[in-house]
Amino acid sequence: MKVNDRKTEIINCAAKLFKEKGYSAVTMRDIAQAMNIKAASLYNHIKSKQEILVLIVIDIAEEFTAVMNDIVSSETSTIQKIEKVIQLHIDITLRNPEALACLNNDWMHLTDEELVYFIKMREEYEQNFREIILKGIENNEIKNLNSEVIIFSMLSTLRTLYLWYGKKKGLTETSLRNHMSEALLRGIV
Amino acid sequence: MKVNDRKTEIINCAAKLFKEKGYSAVTMRDIAQAMNIKAASLYNHIKSKQEILVLIVIDIAEEFTAVMNDIVSSETSTIQKIEKVIQLHIDITLRNPEALACLNNDWMHLTDEELVYFIKMREEYEQNFREIILKGIENNEIKNLNSEVIIFSMLSTLRTLYLWYGKKKGLTETSLRNHMSEALLRGIV
Repeated sequence: MKVNDRKTEIINCAAKLFKEKGYSAVTMRDIAQAMNIKAASLYNHIKSKQEILVLIVIDIAEEFTAVMNDIVSSETSTIQKIEKVIQLHIDITLRNPEALACLNNDWMHLTDEELVYFIKMREEYEQNFREIILKGIENNEIKNLNSEVIIFSMLSTLRTLYLWYGKKKGLTETSLRNHMSEALLRGIV
Repeated sequence: MKVNDRKTEIINCAAKLFKEKGYSAVTMRDIAQAMNIKAASLYNHIKSKQEILVLIVIDIAEEFTAVMNDIVSSETSTIQKIEKVIQLHIDITLRNPEALACLNNDWMHLTDEELVYFIKMREEYEQNFREIILKGIENNEIKNLNSEVIIFSMLSTLRTLYLWYGKKKGLTETSLRNHMSEALLRGIV
């Protein structure tokens, strides 16, 4: 097995443990045990639990940031931009729910420059979304509602999708994508 | 000061500490210190941290349950029922954001019959909401979208309102009530 594959395996295993027990309660020993390897062998790949957290959280935050930057600067309508934001959250939730749980629950355990970097990305993400919404209100593409209510109603739903989607067995990916987009943009009435 | 007032004070103080530090990290000693009383005096009012958690979480869950039961059995349209559910969440969020944070973050620290009772109330609440939505779809009062997508999109937004509402200084209560109801029911387009 390649070193990078092993590292990815460790990260995935740790993300699952963080979700089950909470970041603070998990030790490097727990991770080694769950992977059925010696602690010394774990330390060949990863320096600390903190390093794993950085790899999980920063990696996902950078992906959100990069795609949001593309969306904001794209030459499309406001509605299409919002639809792309919705699909971005669904994409990442379907691909990596454990990492999203880790991002949501444990980002505050980041330290120093990583914490600053994460908060900066999160604020810029919200600011980019805000600009899309404000421009849409200005253009009469979307309703003249309080922009913070729009932003945080949508983000609350999208950011917590990982909590419930996995439990709804009858719900297909296509239904999720189409119906969530419809409900968030055009409502349920 | 009356005994009951003192108890309420203890509960409010504990809820704030749980929010700041996390339930697991808070001790009875911390609560006594924050209230500037002796630990022995605290124990005159409250047996344990667990008792405080029960008082906070079960109290709010019972309020949600009681109002939801009234809404479900009321003789009004589906839209009016959903509007009442939205206003219920906003009411409790505005009145007691710390207790809602405690309910959301710490309910899993309940034990034994209290945990069972809480989970039962939560499931019945979601089931009541589901019945409102399914009846509305059947009556063509609301769109034929996947009911789980509707339920959990709305509940995710309503249940996490306490996280961001307090930070938005320009947002009035009236705007929050009207605009959130409009966005969730009729969308933003």
